[in-house]
Amino acid sequence: MLRILHVGLGPLGIRILNDLHEREVGHVVAAVDNAPALAGQYLHQYVPKASPAIRIQHSLETVDWSVVDLAIVTTSSDLAKCADTFRHLLSKGKAVVSTCEELVYPWLRHVALAEELEELAKRSGGRLLGTGVNPGYLMDALPAFVSSVSKSVRGVACYRVQDASARRIPFQQKIGAGLDDAGFAAKVREGTLRHVGLGESLHFIAHYLGLPIERWEEDIEPVHATRDLQSGVGAIPRGRIAGVRQVAKGYFDEREVVHLEFQAAIGQHDPYDRVLVEGEPRVDVVIPGGVHGDIATSSIVINTLPRVLEAKPGLHTMATIAPPFFVRAGTKR
Amino acid sequence: MLRILHVGLGPLGIRILNDLHEREVGHVVAAVDNAPALAGQYLHQYVPKASPAIRIQHSLETVDWSVVDLAIVTTSSDLAKCADTFRHLLSKGKAVVSTCEELVYPWLRHVALAEELEELAKRSGGRLLGTGVNPGYLMDALPAFVSSVSKSVRGVACYRVQDASARRIPFQQKIGAGLDDAGFAAKVREGTLRHVGLGESLHFIAHYLGLPIERWEEDIEPVHATRDLQSGVGAIPRGRIAGVRQVAKGYFDEREVVHLEFQAAIGQHDPYDRVLVEGEPRVDVVIPGGVHGDIATSSIVINTLPRVLEAKPGLHTMATIAPPFFVRAGTKR
Repeated sequence: MLRILHVGLGPLGIRILNDLHEREVGHVVAAVDNAPALAGQYLHQYVPKASPAIRIQHSLETVDWSVVDLAIVTTSSDLAKCADTFRHLLSKGKAVVSTCEELVYPWLRHVALAEELEELAKRSGGRLLGTGVNPGYLMDALPAFVSSVSKSVRGVACYRVQDASARRIPFQQKIGAGLDDAGFAAKVREGTLRHVGLGESLHFIAHYLGLPIERWEEDIEPVHATRDLQSGVGAIPRGRIAGVRQVAKGYFDEREVVHLEFQAAIGQHDPYDRVLVEGEPRVDVVIPGGVHGDIATSSIVINTLPRVLEAKPGLHTMATIAPPFFVRAGTKR
Repeated sequence: MLRILHVGLGPLGIRILNDLHEREVGHVVAAVDNAPALAGQYLHQYVPKASPAIRIQHSLETVDWSVVDLAIVTTSSDLAKCADTFRHLLSKGKAVVSTCEELVYPWLRHVALAEELEELAKRSGGRLLGTGVNPGYLMDALPAFVSSVSKSVRGVACYRVQDASARRIPFQQKIGAGLDDAGFAAKVREGTLRHVGLGESLHFIAHYLGLPIERWEEDIEPVHATRDLQSGVGAIPRGRIAGVRQVAKGYFDEREVVHLEFQAAIGQHDPYDRVLVEGEPRVDVVIPGGVHGDIATSSIVINTLPRVLEAKPGLHTMATIAPPFFVRAGTKR
């Protein structure tokens, strides 16, 4: 059983810890969250199978490092905001898995920080990986893995089309469901409607598959309801916003070589995930129904833990650790 | 550019070497085949881009090891028949990639030999991997990689359904096209009609995904033409053999936990590959049209070369090397 320090007790963090205990892959030995309301509370209020003795700590300063094998960090999408946490954990020589979206390919927006973390990890014997279902798997690790059967690759396209009807209300709010166009535009300007990670996935593909990108762009636009819809945020009349469509495109020599498309809307018909590797051979991979985002992100974090623990010290990506697969408790590998 | 020693100049070996040079990922520095007709011949007759100075050697004894980075072995499906070659290469501390089907999961049929090769590799600094598109990818590495989004896995099913119409004549002959039932049964008894590797893929999945197998079975049966067909081996009247269907099933507690199905027939409609991971979530991955076997096997051998070279010394599988992806010449990773 892996002994886990968890940092960041938002909904995703709590889900991961509950799954970790339910699956008996590991157990939490310490939990940290800097929200004043959480400090000192008993973790088992949120994670019923956690030891009743564990109180949520306010900071990493009070952690007993001798009992920690691995750390999981679910605090922010923004690598700069996670940096101090990663520095602290790496300086203790720990292996760290995080859902920080920008960490999936940190060289896009944080070259200097990525180099600093890489050096610190190597020096102190730590390991650091960013993962998740998207970014982290469907639009980066999976297309790279699919391309292993390729003799040539001219381009890559990935599509993630989701029906948001069955998702939790905060998710429906986040994609703008029920807004009018002005309200949607305002949320886009605020930056609260953006799915983080398409740029990271795009540059992950470009880097590992040798598809040079001269310029890239990312657009976000509303998906309008084409009929009256019901949703968790109330009725959505035809013409109002049902959800969001976000597209990232990478160009070389005016040719689009990487195309990533993310769409989540209430009432979306026939959701799916799809990876298309254009080349010899052309490989078209379709997942009808798509991959459930919440379960998958928690699962991939847990399933990568053993692979990160056994990896060389350093800053890793999903292309440099051994391929993760479902980890069953008590199974020798 | 990787400097390659190639052992085994059958059609697959020659294809790999031509692809290797065309892709400029590596170049061959020595080639060995024990067929008397080949020894002493110039390799560039078969591999036009190979150096005109290279003659095919009859044995590994005469190889200049100082110029070899990696070896590729395409000699036999049978691990026992490849064992002396692997011993020789590993004793020189070389990294070796082979299409030997039984090497994809050698512990199924050759436990003692697998242990011997593992120990030799570790002692001498060599690395050994068995791969290919099937076995090696579609029914083992790919379902394992798909399961990385899984919270639980109850079972795995893989399907490979191919239209043999466009394949080379030896392949059409190998699947029994044009035979009557008695002729098909005779070839099955001879063992010449068998696709090698379903058992290896099945036990690969069972091992890494923790699906204990109490017993397993493998069946082979003819696919009959349901209409008059044309093929490379001549006309196939309705009712004659169009191809072969081979199914491997692994059971635990009388429940089928792994199901692998391979079908190749002339005139097969809607060929596809499919991986179904039953669990939470259920993940159904479909590749309409399927993956072209000849291109893919050559590609995956070439694309795994850098990952095997950087792996720890030892006997590897597709689950223990870093995940392969398309390797583009001149790309820094």
